[in-house]
Amino acid sequence: MANQQRKKIGVAICGLGKIGAVHLDHVVRNPSVSIEWLVEEDYDRVVQLKHEFYLDDSIKIGNSSKVDEMLADKSVEVILICTPVKFHPSLIKSACKAGKAVFCEKPIALTVDEVKSCYAAARKNQQLLYCAYNRHFDPSVRDIYKRVKAGEIGEVKSIKTTSRDHPESPVSYLKTSGGIFFDCATHDMDMICWIMGSSPTTIYCQAHAFNPDIAAIGDYDQAGIMMQFPKGAVAHVDVNRNAVYGYDQRLEVFGDSGILESKNVFPTSVHHHDQDGHSLGRIQGGFIERYKASYRLEFEHFLNVYQGIEANLDVTEEDCIRVTRLSECCNESMSLGKPISYQQKCINGQLNGQLNGQLNGLK
Amino acid sequence: MANQQRKKIGVAICGLGKIGAVHLDHVVRNPSVSIEWLVEEDYDRVVQLKHEFYLDDSIKIGNSSKVDEMLADKSVEVILICTPVKFHPSLIKSACKAGKAVFCEKPIALTVDEVKSCYAAARKNQQLLYCAYNRHFDPSVRDIYKRVKAGEIGEVKSIKTTSRDHPESPVSYLKTSGGIFFDCATHDMDMICWIMGSSPTTIYCQAHAFNPDIAAIGDYDQAGIMMQFPKGAVAHVDVNRNAVYGYDQRLEVFGDSGILESKNVFPTSVHHHDQDGHSLGRIQGGFIERYKASYRLEFEHFLNVYQGIEANLDVTEEDCIRVTRLSECCNESMSLGKPISYQQKCINGQLNGQLNGQLNGLK
Amino acid sequence: MANQQRKKIGVAICGLGKIGAVHLDHVVRNPSVSIEWLVEEDYDRVVQLKHEFYLDDSIKIGNSSKVDEMLADKSVEVILICTPVKFHPSLIKSACKAGKAVFCEKPIALTVDEVKSCYAAARKNQQLLYCAYNRHFDPSVRDIYKRVKAGEIGEVKSIKTTSRDHPESPVSYLKTSGGIFFDCATHDMDMICWIMGSSPTTIYCQAHAFNPDIAAIGDYDQAGIMMQFPKGAVAHVDVNRNAVYGYDQRLEVFGDSGILESKNVFPTSVHHHDQDGHSLGRIQGGFIERYKASYRLEFEHFLNVYQGIEANLDVTEEDCIRVTRLSECCNESMSLGKPISYQQKCINGQLNGQLNGQLNGLK
Amino acid sequence: MANQQRKKIGVAICGLGKIGAVHLDHVVRNPSVSIEWLVEEDYDRVVQLKHEFYLDDSIKIGNSSKVDEMLADKSVEVILICTPVKFHPSLIKSACKAGKAVFCEKPIALTVDEVKSCYAAARKNQQLLYCAYNRHFDPSVRDIYKRVKAGEIGEVKSIKTTSRDHPESPVSYLKTSGGIFFDCATHDMDMICWIMGSSPTTIYCQAHAFNPDIAAIGDYDQAGIMMQFPKGAVAHVDVNRNAVYGYDQRLEVFGDSGILESKNVFPTSVHHHDQDGHSLGRIQGGFIERYKASYRLEFEHFLNVYQGIEANLDVTEEDCIRVTRLSECCNESMSLGKPISYQQKCINGQLNGQLNGQLNGLK
Repeated sequence: MANQQRKKIGVAICGLGKIGAVHLDHVVRNPSVSIEWLVEEDYDRVVQLKHEFYLDDSIKIGNSSKVDEMLADKSVEVILICTPVKFHPSLIKSACKAGKAVFCEKPIALTVDEVKSCYAAARKNQQLLYCAYNRHFDPSVRDIYKRVKAGEIGEVKSIKTTSRDHPESPVSYLKTSGGIFFDCATHDMDMICWIMGSSPTTIYCQAHAFNPDIAAIGDYDQAGIMMQFPKGAVAHVDVNRNAVYGYDQRLEVFGDSGILESKNVFPTSVHHHDQDGHSLGRIQGGFIERYKASYRLEFEHFLNVYQGIEANLDVTEEDCIRVTRLSECCNESMSLGKPISYQQKCINGQLNGQLNGQLNGLK
Repeated sequence: MANQQRKKIGVAICGLGKIGAVHLDHVVRNPSVSIEWLVEEDYDRVVQLKHEFYLDDSIKIGNSSKVDEMLADKSVEVILICTPVKFHPSLIKSACKAGKAVFCEKPIALTVDEVKSCYAAARKNQQLLYCAYNRHFDPSVRDIYKRVKAGEIGEVKSIKTTSRDHPESPVSYLKTSGGIFFDCATHDMDMICWIMGSSPTTIYCQAHAFNPDIAAIGDYDQAGIMMQFPKGAVAHVDVNRNAVYGYDQRLEVFGDSGILESKNVFPTSVHHHDQDGHSLGRIQGGFIERYKASYRLEFEHFLNVYQGIEANLDVTEEDCIRVTRLSECCNESMSLGKPISYQQKCINGQLNGQLNGQLNGLK
Repeated sequence: MANQQRKKIGVAICGLGKIGAVHLDHVVRNPSVSIEWLVEEDYDRVVQLKHEFYLDDSIKIGNSSKVDEMLADKSVEVILICTPVKFHPSLIKSACKAGKAVFCEKPIALTVDEVKSCYAAARKNQQLLYCAYNRHFDPSVRDIYKRVKAGEIGEVKSIKTTSRDHPESPVSYLKTSGGIFFDCATHDMDMICWIMGSSPTTIYCQAHAFNPDIAAIGDYDQAGIMMQFPKGAVAHVDVNRNAVYGYDQRLEVFGDSGILESKNVFPTSVHHHDQDGHSLGRIQGGFIERYKASYRLEFEHFLNVYQGIEANLDVTEEDCIRVTRLSECCNESMSLGKPISYQQKCINGQLNGQLNGQLNGLK
Repeated sequence: MANQQRKKIGVAICGLGKIGAVHLDHVVRNPSVSIEWLVEEDYDRVVQLKHEFYLDDSIKIGNSSKVDEMLADKSVEVILICTPVKFHPSLIKSACKAGKAVFCEKPIALTVDEVKSCYAAARKNQQLLYCAYNRHFDPSVRDIYKRVKAGEIGEVKSIKTTSRDHPESPVSYLKTSGGIFFDCATHDMDMICWIMGSSPTTIYCQAHAFNPDIAAIGDYDQAGIMMQFPKGAVAHVDVNRNAVYGYDQRLEVFGDSGILESKNVFPTSVHHHDQDGHSLGRIQGGFIERYKASYRLEFEHFLNVYQGIEANLDVTEEDCIRVTRLSECCNESMSLGKPISYQQKCINGQLNGQLNGQLNGLK
């Protein structure tokens, strides 16, 4: 082994809002990476992050007017896209064309067609395109995925997720979120299909807006989803926009020979007993803490594929298309009050996509 | 307090199969009760139980030909009915007519009309009629029921049960069981409506028979049910006929200000760590152990109402009618592949009942 | 199997205070037993229990003046002794002489010599004498005992108990209890030696009375004990007279190939999450609930040996002598401020017993 | 906030063995720090770490012959000392003299006198000297510390630790470790005194070497320690050199009004049930994983004090002196077979130190 400095991978981050800062945090701490560019409209925000993370003056900073300059910069090999969703497709395509590997926050885009066009651009330019469905890299979820694949619990008969947000998002955010199915349940449905290794035949939803402000924007704060898979397994998804007790994230897979569960995580291992009983404190309080490892690990996975250490990206175009269609199915099921055939959805993709657009004003 | 022997309540048990013996076990150990009659077709079975439980020679024993004699016996105040379901209605009516209080294993009957006629007989003869939905008296479930009623978790938004049998029942039993909805999910649906304090608006099912022998009798071994309640809450039921890891019985209620869960129960509090990890042994292995306290407590509740110590029976005619209708809705949902309106079901009760009879050959 | 009533075992209970009522409760519910006599000084107490348990008028009732009559009663085969300790030896000896099997609450007596004389009487009269160290029959403790014996965790290197009372006992009781070592730690030391299958070489204590009322009677409310066993294993005992959070009863055994722990028990399996965190309610609140199964199971064990179904009583004369000596060692260790040799104690038993009597006024 | 690069704190690490690499790992990922020097005898080791962590060529590398050069380097503000213990005192003193702040792996030194001389050097040169008793910064232990200080459980009556190593250390390491009391139990005794806020009056040990190779070097692999505190609280320490089931690290504090426990930590939140029972996988496997956060947080604490963000170092000279004396007391207790007065130890510090040196050849 020669005593010479290893070349680091040059990275640009586009969009430094809440999720952009989450990614900045692990990128800064990753010794194999050098940050080359930060692209963000809000200059004060970048200055504040530069201060917080002791960033070097050598890092180039700019707003969207600098995107072309950044794309032309040879020191940038990888672009992390953390902008609002509406900017994803054009940025992805430009980045791929400029010969950059792309790590994009989920979702790639809001319609199946757009997703397909992004992946087509990546293929055409022979660039990596990773969509950050971070549950795939949660250590507990991934452990379950591997053990189910290895046959540890036999044939899966029932699979269930519980996903409840904490803290409550402001309605201003929810308005632009795409709705509870596109924004929240998308993770659950993707995770379930990924573990099942297949797509459902039928999907049905029940939902309600307990919060009148959420009802007012045509969205729901509580939703239940059932999906049935080709071999008979039944999936249940239970999502809610606000759990006062913390960020509730659970998964359970039941099969022939056993069951695997991913339970909630506590910040410490402290237990307390007093006159009122036995208490463990609160579970993890939000997605940043709960999925801290996932955000880091999915990026490391992306870098591994980029460097040829791992063969394939774990989240595929098919995953992205499927979960977009399933979210559309959810909206349709709510509108029509009946189960939707996912197979039929795939055949009539284009048509239903339009219908869905009309039925649900959230997008 | 005078030093004189208190009068015990005279009891007859009709039917001493598996569930009859479960009830015999707690009745024998209840000092406030004296067993007067055991009615059972299988004479050897009674002799064996008499031996096992050191029963007195003074206890009268007979098969169904002795029912009238038993009913005429003034020493009998309470009759426990543990026969096959098809004998419930006639026995209930005869017992009520003979002036006996009736504790009947669930279900009262397989159709709404029969349930109604049994309760009508009880009312006409001013007799108690209790239907043994024993989950109401499981200490954990009841604790949750009380705390939800007391508003501890605010408005309920999601309620879920998991009920998986262990050990696997033989197909010979399943044939006569009424099917997975009437036999298993009935407990879950009753428990959910009881805690919600209302009936659902809509109910939808997905199910499958993984076991070909169960498919052959037109039943399912895995079923998922979703119900929505008038104020918007969504319920999920997940039932399976065979969990290899033990009798899985869980309940979760999520509301505005928190969540209450009833988790599985372990026979001991022993934990073990070795090279393979941390292990707690198996959960309770079957309904007899898991609901031992429930069987005893529901009977004590019944005796309390009989003696005027408590005012009202906890399981009502309305509960029995509702859960019968809900089970019928499940079969319809499976047949039609769509959600069923429970309200419409109530209006068209008679009509749908007939349809259900045709759709599902299990009854 | 003949259809004839099985003969029940005739039982007398002497002493119906708190612990006597605990035993009455399971004896009443045991169908193989018939209660023949209740001997108790407090007539109102017996009348109240007779009412509570629906006892028959045929049961004979009397105070200590009736002991001879009871002993002469041929219907009595087994005597449960639940009187204050000071009456144990004479009652045991009379009962054995009268040809009765004896089930005696712990301890048999307060000195090694008395214990020996009781067992000598039992042997001479060929009667069973069982001393109710009920931890032996706690399902979790027994499970650990069996698994340690079976070699599941290899050679034991460390063994620890935590035993904290709840609710707090009144000082009036503590005065007559024999002190924290004879009254509380006796269970822990017995349990540890039973599981280890041997006696310690050395024992050392540290203790303190935080409660001035307990200091005033020369006793302690917090005590720690260390014992070392011949092969090197180290034992830790941690006892306290008052845990506000419930009756804390734990055991941990660590060996070559793993660890076995008996954790605390909760009355329900309900978990609750709210803004303040995750709570499980209180652990079992007192010895009556926590050891309910133990009290019943140890008596069933005793009946099994009485009937020849099991070969040997699980608690032996050696166990009783040892735990008496160990409690004496604790008092000596406190008085002398140094470790005590258990071996030397056995050799000088008589002498040290006298010394101990002088050092500790509690007995 | 000005958009200019913040100055980073220049750091040197001396010693890059196992624990040195643990510290390198979090230092590399700390954006507020720049690594200036790595001092290590084994050149290949440094090259390998440089490769692993993508270290810059600008980082100066050298063996002990370069220490003076490193100390003279103005870019170095902080020195992390991770060398074998015998080099600690001279390095600490040189570093303080050179005006560097010192973060030193525990222990500062092996004798009380050396500890004092190191702190004297720090004081004289007005430099920080932090001794890395990392348990202080374990999030669970720290949470308990704070809650005990805040009076959440009232007056402490019992405090207990369990610390069992995994994986087993080679005897070659154990030979130089200082023995089980100086190497392992030191953490437990320090943690207990820190939480109690005082020193014990009396300390007593029992220990054994089950492993003959460990017996051969005059050390123990299983040890129990009891300490009593001035107000009466009793402490139990249970340490073992080898737990096959993982790195067992627990703490329990019992007081007037409740109990706080830090339980073991699992790498994932996955639970599994199958025919053999309920399993949670293994606990954290070793100190690097278990105390990953502690190592990072204690260094951040050190930097905070260095920068004036926090007022005082959390581990003090008094802590270091006390834990050295307590470890000496343990060796004495083993040699003399009796409890040792810590107070007397403090008075006779020098004398006993010499005695201890003779009694225990391990140091």
